[in-house]
Amino acid sequence: MRDVAIIGIGQTPVEEHWSTSIRHLMLEAGVSALRDANIENVDAVYVGNMLSGEVTGQSHLGALAVDFMGLNAEAFKVEAACASGAAALRVGYLAVASGLLDLVLALGVEKMTDTSGRETTAVLAAAADAEYEVSQGISFVALNALLMQRYMHEFGWKREDFANFAVTAHANGANNPNAMFQSPITPEAYARAPIIASPVGLLDASPVCDGAAAVVLAPAEYARTLNPAPVKIRASAVGMAPLAIHDRRDPLSLEAAKISSRKAYKQAGVDTGDIDFFELHDAFTIMAALGLEASGFAERGKGVQLALDGEITLQGRVPIATMGGLKARGHPVGATGLYQIVEAVLQLRGLAGANQIPHARLGMAQNIGGSGATIITHILEAF
Amino acid sequence: MRDVAIIGIGQTPVEEHWSTSIRHLMLEAGVSALRDANIENVDAVYVGNMLSGEVTGQSHLGALAVDFMGLNAEAFKVEAACASGAAALRVGYLAVASGLLDLVLALGVEKMTDTSGRETTAVLAAAADAEYEVSQGISFVALNALLMQRYMHEFGWKREDFANFAVTAHANGANNPNAMFQSPITPEAYARAPIIASPVGLLDASPVCDGAAAVVLAPAEYARTLNPAPVKIRASAVGMAPLAIHDRRDPLSLEAAKISSRKAYKQAGVDTGDIDFFELHDAFTIMAALGLEASGFAERGKGVQLALDGEITLQGRVPIATMGGLKARGHPVGATGLYQIVEAVLQLRGLAGANQIPHARLGMAQNIGGSGATIITHILEAF
Repeated sequence: MRDVAIIGIGQTPVEEHWSTSIRHLMLEAGVSALRDANIENVDAVYVGNMLSGEVTGQSHLGALAVDFMGLNAEAFKVEAACASGAAALRVGYLAVASGLLDLVLALGVEKMTDTSGRETTAVLAAAADAEYEVSQGISFVALNALLMQRYMHEFGWKREDFANFAVTAHANGANNPNAMFQSPITPEAYARAPIIASPVGLLDASPVCDGAAAVVLAPAEYARTLNPAPVKIRASAVGMAPLAIHDRRDPLSLEAAKISSRKAYKQAGVDTGDIDFFELHDAFTIMAALGLEASGFAERGKGVQLALDGEITLQGRVPIATMGGLKARGHPVGATGLYQIVEAVLQLRGLAGANQIPHARLGMAQNIGGSGATIITHILEAF
Repeated sequence: MRDVAIIGIGQTPVEEHWSTSIRHLMLEAGVSALRDANIENVDAVYVGNMLSGEVTGQSHLGALAVDFMGLNAEAFKVEAACASGAAALRVGYLAVASGLLDLVLALGVEKMTDTSGRETTAVLAAAADAEYEVSQGISFVALNALLMQRYMHEFGWKREDFANFAVTAHANGANNPNAMFQSPITPEAYARAPIIASPVGLLDASPVCDGAAAVVLAPAEYARTLNPAPVKIRASAVGMAPLAIHDRRDPLSLEAAKISSRKAYKQAGVDTGDIDFFELHDAFTIMAALGLEASGFAERGKGVQLALDGEITLQGRVPIATMGGLKARGHPVGATGLYQIVEAVLQLRGLAGANQIPHARLGMAQNIGGSGATIITHILEAF
């Protein structure tokens, strides 16, 4: 296999794109990634998307992407629920590593707002076990509420102890022109937020939104001839766990994140102490805590302590959600994994503006599908 | 890159599986492929599927597959409309070729019957252009009717001239215990069949059905240590064309099949004369004719002549649909591409029973997504 690098990035703002169709979102992010890579065509486009068939009535997004972008490239959609973006990157990584393809566009896109509210919640539930969880009326907010409740019960935390996950994300989102929410929030606002499914409040949850993000992959050996600031993919690793929460030995341990992060550390030859920042999957505050623990940054039940201690801020020991995370940048589900990568590349290029982590060299991104069944970790390095 | 071989195959019967859930279909095909390969685990499972989110309310099929099969493997869904099965194989091929993964299960599955009739037709239409074709009320039967009408007008053929595509498929399906339709039909029955969308009649169209098919991939260099009769993937090639028919320069030329087959011939270093049989995508009789022409087996407008001359039968120059094809074996859309591969492997192992092509050495399979936007060709060889 060959080493693989990222030579171009592109993104649309994350917002409610009521007047922009899914093809235009793909075009905007895709073309800006190609321009950034100084290329006009690729060999393949792998589209990360979860819901276009259900929400937009448009399957076959791969064909639509290359058609509308005018590319001469093979193209498929890759789906792993909310981890679809990282899964598309993973397929692109395999394709370039194989030596069969040289230039690949990994493109994540989701349109979630242009449908009725009920439908969005219902189709998102398809990421859980339809026959054993969803048939009982579960939604993703409810699944996360169960996890958060259990976590608080088991380890003695209060709802308020999670506030800093949301506060930090919003503080970082305030400096990201592509974030859905660009205003900071206070711990008091967090505490006052309406409860959606107890104990999950409005400010524990990432928003329904639209967006697209894309990266161009190339063999590392000649990445620099195309872009002066390439970023190397040091690790690409997938972990899996049972689809339904009740089938997991320990619902509070994200086994798939353990597997995926351990594989990634091994592949990159690094440890948690080497990671300068961590774009984790804070779809809900409880997921941020569990992701930190499973990836080795905190002990079991202690993820919340990192937030309380301010260790997750840009100045902390483990900066997370550096451009706002899922909470403030937004969580257009199938695109999220690639937003994380785009933001990590910005950090590693030193282009993260007010949110720049000084001397960032190694960044990690982790994308979660379902309530933790598919978890994909990538480690990136400036070179 | 490394050469890639198929070391195991599995399939469920194609039928209306009203009492079997999608997880059980995956299990049945997947486990029989693993058994055939003499292995108990794989490194990855790539699931080809189009409609599970829409029809079954179950996305995240990759996670469900490895969970229910008890595998320790990474897993995603790959979607390219009706070419999803071949797309999943393509991703598996890239993964093994890369050297990063050794054993991969490519698994196609579709459940289409357990929903209302209207819904099936509506969700299948999502393979076309939602904004420019489907918004005008088009369905897949209607799209193929437009193509068939134009073909007849342009080249002077009559409806009856297409009969042998259906007659041959049913004759072959009669000997396939996994086929949906295991009874032969006559040209008279074809002529009498009710018209669905003129000129497409009931016997021009493949049926709505359920099924799963799977293959295990391994590096060719040690394939024989696992299975005594491996089959090498000599070529894996994708071609693309505009998503909407009205955007194609020539609607009667499957440009994506031209691109895909030419790439495949080049990769394998073979020509049409070397191909012993061709598992083509006869979702409609017109698609069989266009596939033969675009892949170089007949000149433009002459595909139907091959059928009239009997050249597409098991004894003919270009045997197609050797186990019944999409018409008689059935077309569970996301699984079809892998049924084609399973059947090609049976031929190359000499295990195709009454339908065996004598001395079959090189087989080609071609899977079409949409009305021709994504076309994937694989060439397989016994070794």
